[in-house]
Amino acid sequence: MRIALAQLDYHIGNLEYNTQKIIDKIILAKSKKVDIIVFSELSICGYPPRDLLEFKNFIQGCTNSVNAISEHCEGIAAIVGGPSINTKKEGKDLYNSAFFLADKQIKKIVNKTLLPTYDVFEEYRYFESNDVFECIDYKGERIALTVCEDLWNINENPLYITCPMDALIAQKPTMMINIAASPFDYRHIAERKKTLQDNAEKYSLPLFYVNHVGAQTELIFDGGSLAINSKAEIVNELRYFEEDFKVIDTDNFDEPVLDFGFASVELIYGALVLGIQEYFEKLGFKKAILGMSGGIDSAVVLALAVDALGKENVHSVLMPSKYSSEASVGDALEMIKNTRSSHDIIAIDDVVSSFESTLKEKFQGQAPDITEENLQARARGVILMAISNKFGNILINTTNKSEAAVGYGTLYGDMCGGLSLLGDVYKTQVYELANYINRNGEIIPQNIITKAPSAELRPDQKDSDSLPDYNILDKVLFEYIENRKDVKEIIAFGYEATLVHRILKMVNANEYKRFQAPPILRVSPKAFGSGRRMPIVAKYLV
Amino acid sequence: MRIALAQLDYHIGNLEYNTQKIIDKIILAKSKKVDIIVFSELSICGYPPRDLLEFKNFIQGCTNSVNAISEHCEGIAAIVGGPSINTKKEGKDLYNSAFFLADKQIKKIVNKTLLPTYDVFEEYRYFESNDVFECIDYKGERIALTVCEDLWNINENPLYITCPMDALIAQKPTMMINIAASPFDYRHIAERKKTLQDNAEKYSLPLFYVNHVGAQTELIFDGGSLAINSKAEIVNELRYFEEDFKVIDTDNFDEPVLDFGFASVELIYGALVLGIQEYFEKLGFKKAILGMSGGIDSAVVLALAVDALGKENVHSVLMPSKYSSEASVGDALEMIKNTRSSHDIIAIDDVVSSFESTLKEKFQGQAPDITEENLQARARGVILMAISNKFGNILINTTNKSEAAVGYGTLYGDMCGGLSLLGDVYKTQVYELANYINRNGEIIPQNIITKAPSAELRPDQKDSDSLPDYNILDKVLFEYIENRKDVKEIIAFGYEATLVHRILKMVNANEYKRFQAPPILRVSPKAFGSGRRMPIVAKYLV
Repeated sequence: MRIALAQLDYHIGNLEYNTQKIIDKIILAKSKKVDIIVFSELSICGYPPRDLLEFKNFIQGCTNSVNAISEHCEGIAAIVGGPSINTKKEGKDLYNSAFFLADKQIKKIVNKTLLPTYDVFEEYRYFESNDVFECIDYKGERIALTVCEDLWNINENPLYITCPMDALIAQKPTMMINIAASPFDYRHIAERKKTLQDNAEKYSLPLFYVNHVGAQTELIFDGGSLAINSKAEIVNELRYFEEDFKVIDTDNFDEPVLDFGFASVELIYGALVLGIQEYFEKLGFKKAILGMSGGIDSAVVLALAVDALGKENVHSVLMPSKYSSEASVGDALEMIKNTRSSHDIIAIDDVVSSFESTLKEKFQGQAPDITEENLQARARGVILMAISNKFGNILINTTNKSEAAVGYGTLYGDMCGGLSLLGDVYKTQVYELANYINRNGEIIPQNIITKAPSAELRPDQKDSDSLPDYNILDKVLFEYIENRKDVKEIIAFGYEATLVHRILKMVNANEYKRFQAPPILRVSPKAFGSGRRMPIVAKYLV
Repeated sequence: MRIALAQLDYHIGNLEYNTQKIIDKIILAKSKKVDIIVFSELSICGYPPRDLLEFKNFIQGCTNSVNAISEHCEGIAAIVGGPSINTKKEGKDLYNSAFFLADKQIKKIVNKTLLPTYDVFEEYRYFESNDVFECIDYKGERIALTVCEDLWNINENPLYITCPMDALIAQKPTMMINIAASPFDYRHIAERKKTLQDNAEKYSLPLFYVNHVGAQTELIFDGGSLAINSKAEIVNELRYFEEDFKVIDTDNFDEPVLDFGFASVELIYGALVLGIQEYFEKLGFKKAILGMSGGIDSAVVLALAVDALGKENVHSVLMPSKYSSEASVGDALEMIKNTRSSHDIIAIDDVVSSFESTLKEKFQGQAPDITEENLQARARGVILMAISNKFGNILINTTNKSEAAVGYGTLYGDMCGGLSLLGDVYKTQVYELANYINRNGEIIPQNIITKAPSAELRPDQKDSDSLPDYNILDKVLFEYIENRKDVKEIIAFGYEATLVHRILKMVNANEYKRFQAPPILRVSPKAFGSGRRMPIVAKYLV
């Protein structure tokens, strides 16, 4: 049997576009004598469609698309993902379904059983859980078809009571097919391969796995679809961060392929580039601006944006103040020159003075404090937003995860922007990215990498005046945010108690700031945003 | 039997405070010879605790609290809500539980079966569903104890497959007790009473219902706990938007009470006042500032804030520009005088000129457009935030729901603030609130109510230049947002097709702005924020 894995990028809600894309690939597959072509989870509507699922005509549109696609399924079967209606009186009104299309008909609808509702996932918000398990017979094969999470309940402490493959295996299937929308994080590729290989091993069946590729606002789907033989060997691995299409003959499996073996920083880089490209493309924008300080964060953001959008589409704005060092401006200009992109220099001193004199009477007798630093950051924010408004480009945010965590940044100032590239990348990882960007030659000037980080909002300011050393800070943050360790556990790892208390308090006290942050491209297993939901008014030090 | 309904306000995560509050009421109840005292859902930790539930020591803290409370349960039983650990290998690791405490012990743990996961609720993110149904025998009564949503599956199109009371009724209970955390919206009180009365009628049992009261960031829990007799008559109704405590003798039910019969606008007003008070109190703040334009929105916000926080704690900042009319400034000053609160006048013309000259070279040859209007709004935002930073008060946002819906507002400008009071109140409802505020005499000057709304960002600007009449706009928005009607359905109601398309497109195109809006006090069944989750990059016109 010849199976095609179609790893495609869909646009949420753009049913016409998605449907045509699927039909085009079915036509291509027919020309290659494919028996079954497999598309990813919710391919019809894009993943995650969120509250669009609450509109009746959206569901009707998806149903129409499935019917239109089935018209092309003659001499070939196609598996596509989409919502379907639960006709039972009880339970939620929708299922997350895999449609098996053949002979110009819907031959079978397989509904998803395990509905991920944690971190960035909220499927039980919309879907009812399946409780019927039947294989599909097609051209001499008996297929155990499942949707994404349905293969993920085989670990030590399973999240669900039901294991769909345990029910299906009783019917003696000859192969497994799984359609997925499994987003990237830097730990997830290894987990995913292991989970899928564990399934092949447990059930002694080959597995064909098709994942979504493309970025949907903050979620980056990395592709990496797989064919695994019944000995649990990976025999085919589709590309990461790109569309891909591969035909596999089950009678003639290839030898096991080598692991792509990406270094983690390379993966993160690839994910971020895809995330930027797709955010702009799906919103219909081409051009980006950013505030360029001469620091490491804006340098890395500039390099990423130029790689993603092209040098002609990225414009830097330098906004020096009296506290900006000459070295910073020089570093920034050198960096811009290295990327051959454009820039403006717009000094903010006049605007800041104007704010200060406007507020002079009100602030009489008050000592200078963080207010004056925030004024500078906000003056820059207003200038960047004015340029964004005037020329119709998107402002890219440069805040990193360490800063976002402890609230080291100004709301409506350097926290402005349409998309945050580094909001899920710790400062120490930003340096790793910088070195990766320079792997084939210097793009980011060495001085930007080696100098001490500074916000340059007052004379001789250094990040280390207000923050612990990033090497320690990032480790404590990682234990708290990614690993959900509490204050005592973190101290038990050997960190100084006062410091741990101080860091965790900073994180908790800044929920209100992060609530208003731009969407953050997600590359870790626990990103700020929809994946981490803490109460703002809570009083608790974990 | 004497049952006490303890309707209290808890602070999320403040386990010590919540525990002491519960113990104090148990001691009070003992002195009143109460047999069972009932507290609301997740009373130990406050509702909703969100991702705090992912920390082991948070769960341990809750368990310790339950044990500490049980020490006081001698000669009295107490029902408290808290998380408990699922000891089974499969499924999520926690339950949302009601603890029945008596004889200084945990006599029974009843777990919640139906886990609301829609709109603002996300309980399946954290909890496993219960599948064991047992009544509790105590002092001659057999109690069917359930948690909130467990009584809500009795409508026409039930959301869940299971109905817990259908299982419990087989054991012939003599009464029902339900502990809840059911947030206010202006439709919900009537729905809630009907649902609870329907249960009493269906099972011919009395029902004692204790709801949470208090606001947790955007969610306002309104209280209104109920005692319903087996004839489905409401015999006791606790206060709304306030803590309350009532002892009911089941042998001697009162006559049915009259419905409180609040007008909707009175309820919304009460909810908003509670929402402001609690946000400040729970974050440890006292003082608020707001930008006062002389328009209806800031006038209503000022009145609400003064009522909630006291006139000495609310400070208005007038920031006229060359486009501000004298009438607006006069109206604003009269409004401030009526509330006897303080104000400053800080003109923004210098700051705006300074931005314009700073950007002059960059904007050479470009026609003035929305950019210049946004500059003014952002200059005001920066001034307000500077005052907020310098004096340590919270900026209250004045955006209404109609504006938020269509994106008629400036990100980082008038969209700044720590809390939005009117973000879930349509413009036409803002007028209703204004008239309600003036019910006993003029607080909001009549001219503010009667004049045409204007942002005053260019000469002679009126909202009606850019927006449809609010009477029509609000109705179309209501059908789209609250009722999830699609474009065709809304047109079929008799609205002009081009207009409906234009409005819905504006709503969709501004997801990115609302993503960065402050938390919005929720008073409707579908508020912007955590209750409505639309993709930013989607391309779909419903």
